Amino acid sequence: MSEKSFRDLAHDDEHLAEKKISGEGVYDGIFLKMKRDTVALPDGQYAVREYLEHPGAVAILAILDDGRVLLERQYRYPIAQAVIEIPAGKLNTGEDPLLCAQRELQEETGYTAKHWSKIRRIHPVISYSTEFIDIYLAEGLSPGPALLDDEEFLDVFAAPLEELLNWVETGKITDVKTIISTYWLERRRSRSSA
Amino acid sequence: MSEKSFRDLAHDDEHLAEKKISGEGVYDGIFLKMKRDTVALPDGQYAVREYLEHPGAVAILAILDDGRVLLERQYRYPIAQAVIEIPAGKLNTGEDPLLCAQRELQEETGYTAKHWSKIRRIHPVISYSTEFIDIYLAEGLSPGPALLDDEEFLDVFAAPLEELLNWVETGKITDVKTIISTYWLERRRSRSSA
Repeated sequence: MSEKSFRDLAHDDEHLAEKKISGEGVYDGIFLKMKRDTVALPDGQYAVREYLEHPGAVAILAILDDGRVLLERQYRYPIAQAVIEIPAGKLNTGEDPLLCAQRELQEETGYTAKHWSKIRRIHPVISYSTEFIDIYLAEGLSPGPALLDDEEFLDVFAAPLEELLNWVETGKITDVKTIISTYWLERRRSRSSA
Repeated sequence: MSEKSFRDLAHDDEHLAEKKISGEGVYDGIFLKMKRDTVALPDGQYAVREYLEHPGAVAILAILDDGRVLLERQYRYPIAQAVIEIPAGKLNTGEDPLLCAQRELQEETGYTAKHWSKIRRIHPVISYSTEFIDIYLAEGLSPGPALLDDEEFLDVFAAPLEELLNWVETGKITDVKTIISTYWLERRRSRSSA
């Protein structure tokens, strides 16, 4: 096979980039804001891009002292099912992602953590939302009372990595931030035990 | 730590589920349709859920005979950058996901594949979109001419798994379907070589 490698590609993005010509807000909802922009394609043609403006979000891979991972089970209306996922939440306007992660972990699970570090930023919806999710690792956990919003209903529980991996591989976990965090943790543990 | 295990949770979802009371379409765009439903929460309160109706999508982990993974580099306007990702596309109305995967691989890269199997279904946006992505494995590839839409501009290239993993770990790849497929492939190869 002779398919090109990454180093063979053009080094600038001129042949790919889309440039904004004009834009308007087309829906301004309670949670979601939709925009519709006209863009110039690389060949000069115009096209329309519809997308959601999202403030960004955080997710927290929180590890108990016994090694288990803190999880939630929460009903997600758009996909009409209770979903197993790691704690997560949307940034308030201007909020620092790490402070948001610390706030969300405590609000949703009651836990606070001594040690925080950023794992990485992911983009869940590159075709129609500006959303990013910053995933944090939280260790040195202490339990406390959850402070759920009036409208939040969720189960908090914990599972060992092996169970999480099994749920990922069998399709019981389908949430992307949770799958990625599970795989990340497996690689971290297998590297440290190697 | 005494956090509950999964088996300790209530077995039905009555304490989590949200039930639709009424719904309306609030935006009907060229690509995106937004809905706003009123739902009853588990305690009987009402709340509003805004979300996008999405037909679902496919992504293709296509492996060349030399073991490299087929990739694209495409400008993604909502996050304003050229993104490294595996081939993917949205289902046409009523389209079978496997046929969609075969069509998208050929349209975007020119390749056809002898062997197809489904890896899994993921949910990228559980809080505000009905979207799922079915990820397929394609092997036994043969090159051919791409059939890009008038508005599609992308680079096609290939990279070995080790390079992909490095790009995931260093944050050069942030697209969730591509991260998950990379980790999946690493586990598959390490199991088959164990």
